[in-house]
Amino acid sequence: MIARRLISLSLQSRVLTSSLRVMSSIPPPECLFKEMNIPNRQLFGPGPSTMPQVIGASQAQPLLGHLHPEFVEIMSQCRLGLQYVFKTRNAYTFAVSGTGHAGMEAAILNLAERGETILVAKAGIWGQRAADLGRRLGLKVEVVEVADGEIVPVRALEEAATRVKPALIFVCHGESSTGIVQPLEGLSKIAHDNGGLLLVDTVASLGGAPFDMDQLNVDCVYSATQKVLNGPPGLAPISFSDRAIQKIKNRKERVASFYFDALELGNYWGCDGEMRRYHHTAPISSVYALREALAIIAKKGIDNLIQQHVDNATAMYNQLGEAGLSMFVNKKEDRLPCLHTIKVPEGVDWKAVQSSLFGQGIEVAGGLGATTGKIFRIGTFGQNSEPVKAKEVVNKFIQVVKEQSKL
Amino acid sequence: MIARRLISLSLQSRVLTSSLRVMSSIPPPECLFKEMNIPNRQLFGPGPSTMPQVIGASQAQPLLGHLHPEFVEIMSQCRLGLQYVFKTRNAYTFAVSGTGHAGMEAAILNLAERGETILVAKAGIWGQRAADLGRRLGLKVEVVEVADGEIVPVRALEEAATRVKPALIFVCHGESSTGIVQPLEGLSKIAHDNGGLLLVDTVASLGGAPFDMDQLNVDCVYSATQKVLNGPPGLAPISFSDRAIQKIKNRKERVASFYFDALELGNYWGCDGEMRRYHHTAPISSVYALREALAIIAKKGIDNLIQQHVDNATAMYNQLGEAGLSMFVNKKEDRLPCLHTIKVPEGVDWKAVQSSLFGQGIEVAGGLGATTGKIFRIGTFGQNSEPVKAKEVVNKFIQVVKEQSKL
Repeated sequence: MIARRLISLSLQSRVLTSSLRVMSSIPPPECLFKEMNIPNRQLFGPGPSTMPQVIGASQAQPLLGHLHPEFVEIMSQCRLGLQYVFKTRNAYTFAVSGTGHAGMEAAILNLAERGETILVAKAGIWGQRAADLGRRLGLKVEVVEVADGEIVPVRALEEAATRVKPALIFVCHGESSTGIVQPLEGLSKIAHDNGGLLLVDTVASLGGAPFDMDQLNVDCVYSATQKVLNGPPGLAPISFSDRAIQKIKNRKERVASFYFDALELGNYWGCDGEMRRYHHTAPISSVYALREALAIIAKKGIDNLIQQHVDNATAMYNQLGEAGLSMFVNKKEDRLPCLHTIKVPEGVDWKAVQSSLFGQGIEVAGGLGATTGKIFRIGTFGQNSEPVKAKEVVNKFIQVVKEQSKL
Repeated sequence: MIARRLISLSLQSRVLTSSLRVMSSIPPPECLFKEMNIPNRQLFGPGPSTMPQVIGASQAQPLLGHLHPEFVEIMSQCRLGLQYVFKTRNAYTFAVSGTGHAGMEAAILNLAERGETILVAKAGIWGQRAADLGRRLGLKVEVVEVADGEIVPVRALEEAATRVKPALIFVCHGESSTGIVQPLEGLSKIAHDNGGLLLVDTVASLGGAPFDMDQLNVDCVYSATQKVLNGPPGLAPISFSDRAIQKIKNRKERVASFYFDALELGNYWGCDGEMRRYHHTAPISSVYALREALAIIAKKGIDNLIQQHVDNATAMYNQLGEAGLSMFVNKKEDRLPCLHTIKVPEGVDWKAVQSSLFGQGIEVAGGLGATTGKIFRIGTFGQNSEPVKAKEVVNKFIQVVKEQSKL
């Protein structure tokens, strides 16, 4: 039956297209004649997080051109919103047209030249990723590594920086593979004293843990839209300090990418003023969504949002502790308040737990990389950190773990 | 009044956040407290094109996780749809998580190594862009150039390829800055006979001009979603031949990017089978939109869609000719059937024409790069090539040009 349908379509297209130089030989895929199946699921994993309806709806709005005045206005609103969330007055604050990892790539490509040294603080897979990327880009890579669940000591970074004089220090603020939050105080001084710049990954932490770009004197920070911001993935918010822009302007070689060239991107986003050069066609719908995500945060207040994550984390530690479960990160102050890593209790099949919750329409995750099999990861990003909602999900999680441990 | 409001907000946030380590010093931007202004506009420029409601609505659907089974199924449907549209059976057919230019970058990064030669056919700004990118990436760049409005002669490419033995030949199928469609017959043989690969940019042409990847023996092709596909910008459909994948697997150095690494991307998209490695968080909503865009084409039939553009172009040439307007590309067979370039008549202010139509809610464009001021560009991509709609817009365009030439 299907075969007959395909033959008939194929014949039909042969007749219709006899005037064309080239003829279709592949039939249209049957699966595209059906509706998409998109169940409604509560996303309490490491991201994407559950998207509020108002953000989703913004993407159903008509497209504008990438240089239409109304779109340029929305880009400006995004820049202001990102300055507010990053807590910076940096002119070069915008969003890279790619997912979180594109932010890492844009940052390192622009801030370091082939042959220069990058010093990487590695507390999990994101440090590992940065080190790997550095090697791909022809940088010298120096790694300061700690065991999973620990933070990188400032003193170890200082010792290494003094020794290798890195052009760039990479630190991941919220390490989502282990659940730590890396202290950032003092790091910019170490970078600057040794002639380099400080780059911070806030993909998993922005809006969910205290962060102040200007006060910390960070030179470059990037993030993603699908964590605390509750937006769809697809953009990487980024900000460069004046010192970082100066370094880019003084490069010996051009950036080995046009798509990620920070000066071109910044110009298109209006960071140099209103004389914008066309650079690429921005992902219009994703920018609408980012704008709505930022509007939600502006209305709530960034500090209220962070506080909600901190309060919620404290409540969860109690809730989980009372149920006899242990957090993976020992010290409370080292824990990321928006992504919680919980030890898999002995005898419990983590996959069975995850799968049982998935069957109830709730996503929680296992570990990532080296932590696979050792931990559960529960993300309470943005609106998922509202106390009642978070408590309910954690209760269901505890219940399923208990059921599984009885088996 | 605004100042007082800001002070009050600032004081309020100071009180509320006294318990946080870091304190907000930047007030939330006023502009984010208002609604976005997104007028409904008919996009008949060079892209983005007008987006059908069904595609927009798909982006309002809830997010799924980037490895959830239902999302993986949607990715598979996209791969089948892209194979259908590119007319290829290549396993490595997927979409890069970036806009059209990201496709160019991914292709060149993977297919050429530092020190190798890229031969660029330059008939406008896209060839220029590829040459510039090649230089950024440390490639040797050889350019075969023609005047704006002309196609690059196959013989000139053959002569250059025989001389420089390029690892890669770059050709832009639909040059949107001039309106030509580049003939592709014979080019893969030239590339292969000289030990290299053939890369074709179909950003502005895919679905709007005859193209058959497998019949033409093309090694890599990329496109964009916001032209004939009528989707939102944000993804770059791409396909690699087995020969291209073999070259990538035999590279001496790793690709100088993780985000654009074709083997990693292909694995995540299921091109190696169902054992997928997490690579990055796909832009979920954009993938929904791509799937819906492909479903529209599958239902219409790719050859019917191409034929519609061809027929529509013929009707437009007559319509414009009767009004005394001249096409920029002399030979009819050299014209791209989905993006029409029209000479600005002497004495007519092209900006005034554009701006008058914009005031009526219709976008048409001026030139790009060297063609600025010389031409108008009218895109009739996808559903904008429906005869009645296209005819109406062209009539309005003619009317405005006539009004302007009387002034």
